[in-house]
Amino acid sequence: ITQIDSAAESVDKGHYRHYMLKEIYEQPSVIRRSLAGRLGSKNILIEAMGSRAGQILKDISSVQIVACGTSYHAGMVAKYWIEGLAGVPCRVEVASEFRYRKFKVQDNTLFVTISQSGETADTLAALRLAKTLGYSASLTVCNVAQSSLVRESDLYLMTEAGPEIGVASTKAFTTQLVALLFLTVALGRHHDMTENEEKDIVKALNALPDLLSETLELNLNIKKMSNAFAEKHHALFLGRGAQWPVAMEGALKLKEISYIHAESYPAGELKHGPLALVDADMPVIAVAPNDELLEKLKSNLEEVQARGGQLFVFCDKAAGFKTAKGMDIIELPHVDDVIAPIIYTIPLQLLSYHVAILKGTDVDQPRNLAKSVTVE
Amino acid sequence: ITQIDSAAESVDKGHYRHYMLKEIYEQPSVIRRSLAGRLGSKNILIEAMGSRAGQILKDISSVQIVACGTSYHAGMVAKYWIEGLAGVPCRVEVASEFRYRKFKVQDNTLFVTISQSGETADTLAALRLAKTLGYSASLTVCNVAQSSLVRESDLYLMTEAGPEIGVASTKAFTTQLVALLFLTVALGRHHDMTENEEKDIVKALNALPDLLSETLELNLNIKKMSNAFAEKHHALFLGRGAQWPVAMEGALKLKEISYIHAESYPAGELKHGPLALVDADMPVIAVAPNDELLEKLKSNLEEVQARGGQLFVFCDKAAGFKTAKGMDIIELPHVDDVIAPIIYTIPLQLLSYHVAILKGTDVDQPRNLAKSVTVE
Repeated sequence: ITQIDSAAESVDKGHYRHYMLKEIYEQPSVIRRSLAGRLGSKNILIEAMGSRAGQILKDISSVQIVACGTSYHAGMVAKYWIEGLAGVPCRVEVASEFRYRKFKVQDNTLFVTISQSGETADTLAALRLAKTLGYSASLTVCNVAQSSLVRESDLYLMTEAGPEIGVASTKAFTTQLVALLFLTVALGRHHDMTENEEKDIVKALNALPDLLSETLELNLNIKKMSNAFAEKHHALFLGRGAQWPVAMEGALKLKEISYIHAESYPAGELKHGPLALVDADMPVIAVAPNDELLEKLKSNLEEVQARGGQLFVFCDKAAGFKTAKGMDIIELPHVDDVIAPIIYTIPLQLLSYHVAILKGTDVDQPRNLAKSVTVE
Repeated sequence: ITQIDSAAESVDKGHYRHYMLKEIYEQPSVIRRSLAGRLGSKNILIEAMGSRAGQILKDISSVQIVACGTSYHAGMVAKYWIEGLAGVPCRVEVASEFRYRKFKVQDNTLFVTISQSGETADTLAALRLAKTLGYSASLTVCNVAQSSLVRESDLYLMTEAGPEIGVASTKAFTTQLVALLFLTVALGRHHDMTENEEKDIVKALNALPDLLSETLELNLNIKKMSNAFAEKHHALFLGRGAQWPVAMEGALKLKEISYIHAESYPAGELKHGPLALVDADMPVIAVAPNDELLEKLKSNLEEVQARGGQLFVFCDKAAGFKTAKGMDIIELPHVDDVIAPIIYTIPLQLLSYHVAILKGTDVDQPRNLAKSVTVE
């Protein structure tokens, strides 16, 4: 466990107006640090997870993830990765629900917790419960080395994000995603992932810090876009596939710091109810990388436009969207599908930040919320 | 397959102002009908699912449910039942997401679709895809005997709700729940359910029609409560355990027909973000049967009150809630835990109906929505 420069990072806000903005901008560097020592040129270094990691992971045939809030959204992204890339069945559950459910634990299941602080009460209680239920082993994805979750888990993946002061989590989330992608590859090696697929993921991870920096350069465009939200009280966030949890996290950010009632949906569910809400007062934000779901998403968005909804789309340069009446576009660099959830999180963080500034809320200390939820 | 009196039911609205209200009030009788021929005095009659049902279900060791909208919420309730009562692992997924995901199908998995019309495009496409993926068998829970889903599934459980005209689904949902509880027992018989447990569920199901009628008698109280929502633009619906999907369905109803931006959360997640939204303009509705989660839910609700949120609680007579400043209570009859999700759906349907009347919306034909979503 290393926490390079973490003391320096916590000292002050530097030239940033808020911790949240500083932490958003730290993402390229903390992610670069979280990759150091974990990636070879063509593969990941499983030993970096601890000497027992290889031994434990090779017998795992399913994964149970438990977390709360933003960490739960990271787990939702990981489900798409662990099932789609590693070929391992994965369940994700909110900790406060997991604790009170009855079900049978399947053989050879890895129990994974995710928590920035490592002290989230429901998540910690879920881990303690899990130890009585017959899981093969426990692993935590955590940002605090001295925390209860790290101490009480068999394996840990430190997120190396450094101290996060803003109550709304930003760099903790994206570094959790990096750690979970690392876990995906570690699992995949014993299941459905080929050497070439691992090599491609390593390549995408190595490109990630620079792509994050490039994405942060969109800040002024996003600030300009944020004006459209200053008088709004609602928002819908849409995504499909692994971008659905990215939309969830985008909605949560806006909720937490701007107090706008933002909700997320997998785009295909629009027609089954939420479309009734769409009118000029309900802006719709979509994350639209240039992946196989793009054409489906476009048809969902046409439904929104046909009902007078104002669209805000974050998309790949090659996605073929054009700014037009009722449709505001911000183009992102072209990125590999596997890291797209990490990249597309950035503009949604910046959007919520700028909207909160316009709303005049207390960005780093939103009302009613605590940084670490250490009570049940 | 029998559809007793279904022609008569579709003829007109009778003395009801809207189809939706008529369909809400039909629930005791259509559920009584859907139980006829399926329940013995101490057990369910699996043969009622078709001659091959027993043979197919005895080899099933996991369940994958796929559905959209309201039917997806029924699937979410069923997950709690199938895992908690039958001891069989169960996954539930939105059809538009399931179709585009990569994952490995586990051996001996039953593929279950749920759809009122049996023609929901994404659900039907998911079934056709599933047939190529190695599932053991398919079963559909459906309301239309001549539909594509029924024709193309190995087994079917007809919901016997009769024609549903209101776009916002009511009796289709509760009859889906009854069918899914029946499926739970059929699976449980080959897994973790004892004869006594089956007997208790049969007893609870037999009591259901009368308890539904008793619950409908709360209509005037609920109508009175609805006045508090006439000027509101937001609402939060909270539940825990199998009542979380009931809260989801309550939020969807309010969204669909009153255009109020209603969202649901498992109550334990409040502290991880949505609490920032809570103020006097954000009414909070909670479903609180007198089950093991009650004390936990109470502590969640105290957080809402402490932040000035107005609470509306549907609870068991014995739950110990009292109407007070900031807390409006409607007491329901005491019911067995297993049927509580069906019972607690009723007041939320009535609430959304009365709020829509106050808002002056087109209750049976809400804007932007179609009854059956037969396009992708």
